[in-house]
Amino acid sequence: MSDDAEALKRQVGIEAATLVEDGMVVGLGTGSTARFMIDALAERARQGLRFVGVPTSKRSEEQARELGLDVSDLATHPEIDLTIDGADDIERGTLHLIKGLGGALLREKIVASASRRMVVIADASKVVDHLGQHSPIPVEVSSFGWEVTAARLADLGLRPAVRRDRAGTLFLTDGGNLILDCATEPLADPADTERRILGIVGVFECGLFIHRAELALVAESGGVRRLTRS
Amino acid sequence: MSDDAEALKRQVGIEAATLVEDGMVVGLGTGSTARFMIDALAERARQGLRFVGVPTSKRSEEQARELGLDVSDLATHPEIDLTIDGADDIERGTLHLIKGLGGALLREKIVASASRRMVVIADASKVVDHLGQHSPIPVEVSSFGWEVTAARLADLGLRPAVRRDRAGTLFLTDGGNLILDCATEPLADPADTERRILGIVGVFECGLFIHRAELALVAESGGVRRLTRS
Repeated sequence: MSDDAEALKRQVGIEAATLVEDGMVVGLGTGSTARFMIDALAERARQGLRFVGVPTSKRSEEQARELGLDVSDLATHPEIDLTIDGADDIERGTLHLIKGLGGALLREKIVASASRRMVVIADASKVVDHLGQHSPIPVEVSSFGWEVTAARLADLGLRPAVRRDRAGTLFLTDGGNLILDCATEPLADPADTERRILGIVGVFECGLFIHRAELALVAESGGVRRLTRS
Repeated sequence: MSDDAEALKRQVGIEAATLVEDGMVVGLGTGSTARFMIDALAERARQGLRFVGVPTSKRSEEQARELGLDVSDLATHPEIDLTIDGADDIERGTLHLIKGLGGALLREKIVASASRRMVVIADASKVVDHLGQHSPIPVEVSSFGWEVTAARLADLGLRPAVRRDRAGTLFLTDGGNLILDCATEPLADPADTERRILGIVGVFECGLFIHRAELALVAESGGVRRLTRS
């Protein structure tokens, strides 16, 4: 990635951090742009901003702790004012998302579901006209009987592939579950697709985030672009 | 339990075992009545019946192996001809079920979902007019963020209580997840309740089995009663 692209991501991170207000509980996302956002929040904390961070991953938690931020969890703070997180795909117009290619799908979705507002941050390559045209949908499934679960996902017209690491070993989530990356045609009705996926026995969660984000800050060559729901 | 009640359960188990035909792949359920059914299957195997058993629990697997039955799993046999399993509640007329008070909810539901037919076996105390009037609905949830998931279940009008063992320690499923036992008013539309529960982030599976069983064999004082969907 070019220095320019890095600078733009930093700019998005800084702009996202300005959305945090004094006293807020903030969901801290994961990813390269979120990393800049957490840095920017630490800078604001040094200038006196008080807030509590609830990280969506161990990586974000470590970064926040190293920067001396006040870190908490959902048991202590089950209601989050604002979550700022990345995405793999952002659908133009709806701001429906695909997330979870990094593997922290479940944790990210639980934090999002506990949040009053969600703002998504990314570079322009993540913005698509229709979910499904670019990234597969990650689906977290029970390791017991996953072959049956994969067959049911295929019945929906999806093309599930079990995620493996580079050595070919089955990838395990933090919770010890498997991920089926489901390639698909562009989705005409992502909310319906989510419902059908979640209705399959053995499916724990899927990477479709429907009606979660209300604002996207996107790094483009011209600067930071704000996308809202149309 | 009286000797008579035990004898009736045995009778149900024997009758259920007669449903198995030569060459079938059979889902082997769990519970006191299922135990008699597996014993009866072993007796039929000694008389020459050939079948493959896919157990829904470690307990059933052990019993089947001790009896010398041919035991397999979903990876090898992802399509099951007939599953015979117990239930905590059986709704009269629909044969919708509540299962999972024993904790094997996920495994039992995956086996049921892989089965062409499901027959439920139980004693008469398990038959109810409406699900929800007798047993709570067990819901298997992610241990990460379970407090948030419990709050979302309460938003649906359910009364979730996290399951603990006698010492007060959180009960963990085979998959390392938690169970929230959700007390509820009698359910007017169990299929809708299931959809709403499964739509909550952090929920892995719930103990409602909708449109799964097509026949119930119930031990009553007068003998074995057959209930079908009305």
